[in-house]
Amino acid sequence: MSQANKTPIFPPPLSGSEQDETTSFRPRFNSDGLVAAIAQDVSSNEVLMLAWMNEDALKLTIETGRAVYWSRSRNQLWRKGDTSGAYQYVESIHTDCDQDAILLKVRQTDGACHTGRVSCFYRQITDLSTLNPTEDKPA
Amino acid sequence: MSQANKTPIFPPPLSGSEQDETTSFRPRFNSDGLVAAIAQDVSSNEVLMLAWMNEDALKLTIETGRAVYWSRSRNQLWRKGDTSGAYQYVESIHTDCDQDAILLKVRQTDGACHTGRVSCFYRQITDLSTLNPTEDKPA
Repeated sequence: MSQANKTPIFPPPLSGSEQDETTSFRPRFNSDGLVAAIAQDVSSNEVLMLAWMNEDALKLTIETGRAVYWSRSRNQLWRKGDTSGAYQYVESIHTDCDQDAILLKVRQTDGACHTGRVSCFYRQITDLSTLNPTEDKPA
Repeated sequence: MSQANKTPIFPPPLSGSEQDETTSFRPRFNSDGLVAAIAQDVSSNEVLMLAWMNEDALKLTIETGRAVYWSRSRNQLWRKGDTSGAYQYVESIHTDCDQDAILLKVRQTDGACHTGRVSCFYRQITDLSTLNPTEDKPA
């Protein structure tokens, strides 16, 4: 990753229950330098999408109140809405016990999904091979 | 991974918008053979945890209605609740646009988190360095 020689923005994780109970934010990035980020609509409580953040994306999200992700396909920062118009204004950010995942509660404008749908989770798994659409593709 | 020589349970992903629109379940596993799985409480809509599933965990979850994950720390299948007593009974399963993430809506018994808390997301990020607990550790 291009992050390799940067000074870290965040302190390193602690171990075991220390990491679970600390009030110090010590995100645990994976070997690609990323944490998983879940976006949930603050009004409907619908889970909208799962994306990824590197250090810079996480810092920008905390500091600006706009959701910023790391695009693994384009290998660049992705401030949600800049190209699509579907912004995410961040109401709160939580981290999980071992601090390798982030939960954003957002005010979402337009559909969160790149297909135009409200949520990326628009197909229900009904058996091992079949998906049942639960939200139509917008016209 | 130990999965390398197994016959795949699921067909391979399609490309681009075909993957987004197909009604065929074609999960996109990462290079470790895993997909991310979000568990959400079907009653409260609270996001409870983020964990990982390999092919076998995903198959067992779909077929049995109990949430089964892949424990990356123990390197084994982890049927939620078998040791903790905190079961997850699956009400619905969705996948996302590119099918590399899973959303489970579950009936959760006891706390989902290994710390005993209802949700793993019990600390709010208030600035770059500080977490504010939003749920106490159970006594």
